Amino acid sequence: MYGAGDVRVETVPDARVIEPTDALVTVTRACICGSDLWPYKTMEHTETGRRMGHEFIGVVEAVGAGVGTVKRGDLVVAPFAWSDGTCVFCREGLQTSCLHGGWWGGELDGGQGEAVRVPQADGTLVVLPVSKDDALMASLLTLSDVMGTGHHAALSAKVSPGKSVAVVGDGAVGLCGVIAARRLGAEQIILLGRHADRIALARDFGATDVVSERGDEAVERVRELTGGLGAHSVLECVGYEQSTVTALSIVRPGGAVGRVGVPQDEAIPAAQPTFFNNITIAGGPAPVRAYIEELLPDVLEGRIEPGRVFDRVTNLDGVPDGYRAMNDREAIKVMIEL
Amino acid sequence: MYGAGDVRVETVPDARVIEPTDALVTVTRACICGSDLWPYKTMEHTETGRRMGHEFIGVVEAVGAGVGTVKRGDLVVAPFAWSDGTCVFCREGLQTSCLHGGWWGGELDGGQGEAVRVPQADGTLVVLPVSKDDALMASLLTLSDVMGTGHHAALSAKVSPGKSVAVVGDGAVGLCGVIAARRLGAEQIILLGRHADRIALARDFGATDVVSERGDEAVERVRELTGGLGAHSVLECVGYEQSTVTALSIVRPGGAVGRVGVPQDEAIPAAQPTFFNNITIAGGPAPVRAYIEELLPDVLEGRIEPGRVFDRVTNLDGVPDGYRAMNDREAIKVMIEL
Repeated sequence: MYGAGDVRVETVPDARVIEPTDALVTVTRACICGSDLWPYKTMEHTETGRRMGHEFIGVVEAVGAGVGTVKRGDLVVAPFAWSDGTCVFCREGLQTSCLHGGWWGGELDGGQGEAVRVPQADGTLVVLPVSKDDALMASLLTLSDVMGTGHHAALSAKVSPGKSVAVVGDGAVGLCGVIAARRLGAEQIILLGRHADRIALARDFGATDVVSERGDEAVERVRELTGGLGAHSVLECVGYEQSTVTALSIVRPGGAVGRVGVPQDEAIPAAQPTFFNNITIAGGPAPVRAYIEELLPDVLEGRIEPGRVFDRVTNLDGVPDGYRAMNDREAIKVMIEL
Repeated sequence: MYGAGDVRVETVPDARVIEPTDALVTVTRACICGSDLWPYKTMEHTETGRRMGHEFIGVVEAVGAGVGTVKRGDLVVAPFAWSDGTCVFCREGLQTSCLHGGWWGGELDGGQGEAVRVPQADGTLVVLPVSKDDALMASLLTLSDVMGTGHHAALSAKVSPGKSVAVVGDGAVGLCGVIAARRLGAEQIILLGRHADRIALARDFGATDVVSERGDEAVERVRELTGGLGAHSVLECVGYEQSTVTALSIVRPGGAVGRVGVPQDEAIPAAQPTFFNNITIAGGPAPVRAYIEELLPDVLEGRIEPGRVFDRVTNLDGVPDGYRAMNDREAIKVMIEL
């Protein structure tokens, strides 16, 4: 990406193993993330461009001398952050704060390409027990980000059996939040969204109610649906100030908001109402690496189908148009097949 | 209180039972709260004045026909909010959000007076199994607010055995937060404070370290004391923007800030750093009614001595000077004996 709206497919030097803890992975599936749309909307032009993509599945081509858990030929999924798996935060299950980890792009390859050098391969990659053309590939790919992120939102919002849940945002993460809330036993799942195709999918995933109003009207409607009290758990899957205000306004006293939408503002609104109502605000970038093992059996056995958030498939050359389609809301989420 | 700095002791109509759920309580001990200093600093002048005080112990003089759990002659402690004990929030232990509850003052009597009409007496009052001149009276009085509030801060910040805890604020609530953190098994308790008398008391209560720097230097010092990572749990016991920024800056990734200082600003700062570090922000007005039963045995058996936060005792006529002394930081907390 060279700037807002300017995505180019270019030939770059081949990825290769550099550190002994690296693996070289040939990408077989990747995708475009809602968070990729932030720079697509706002990034200043640069001469050097920026590697994009942080969600991928691929085949291990080579490993460094220090890698022990993956080997050439393994099909692996990569979380959206890489991590060593051994530091104090990794051991606590917070791999996004790994002391020796980091994020794709920058000096590293992005997932939206043919191959990626994966640092800290032992801590980062998870071997998938299927072949690279398995029908479950779409759902498995969501374990790299959106399904784990929806799960993180639900855990951060303290979803548990019998609770009422509201999901702010009908993008891929919000839809995965619906799956996660149902999976954790929520009794009522209210999706705040306005696109017919997304609403239909949300209902399939377990949403019991849909609120398509905005602002104060949405707040009023959620209150009506929750006996006037608000929802026990609210999943904030957007990151704008307005969506955050809505999330903080529809949570019930003593409830929790799990935020996974990257905040676009410097402050969290409603310091006083959230205080007087004892609202918990939690969440952040999901440690999806911690969740892959937990969610994988449900994907493999077909109990959850998060891959249904992909409503368009393209190849590498189609990536620029994939950004455009997602930005124009023509597509929920675009998968890239290589 | 008629305005900032203007506290008067006046004769008002006698308190009496009005509703069948009321009790009439003759106050034997009351106190001045750090939160009373907010209006003492800023309240606009009014002609009618405002009843003050929300922490008291007293003797039940009379009860309405609907009251069943307290009777004439009982010595009782009142939480800083009254509540019915039966609504959905009371049953969940969040009495500060009681659907039929409220706060002292306003149309009601305040605790800084001779007698108080207590609404929802069954839900609100807790009978104390001691006489009104018991030596434990000071510590028992803290169960009306500051000890329960410190406990709430610690619970909200997820204090548990072995954790590192930082307490922002060396007022009565911060000092009770030190007691609560130790009681919950914290391994390291860092007090951020600068007053020698308060620091000495905090060390007696279990503080293992003291940081007297401010701002960035305080943040740096706490990091040094916590192996560069920050504290697992931070208790925000002030409410100013600067103290909140400090609290949010010294918490470790994946950690929690329990806020009990009433926020003086409209937004919570640091939306993005707290997001990227997966910080939990929780807390609010403490449901002290829920905590009295839990904390009472520890007070009665002398395991905790929160009453030591009272370093001055006065009578009703001394209340105006008590406000001044607390506001000038001459006194940590003033007890009123009637």
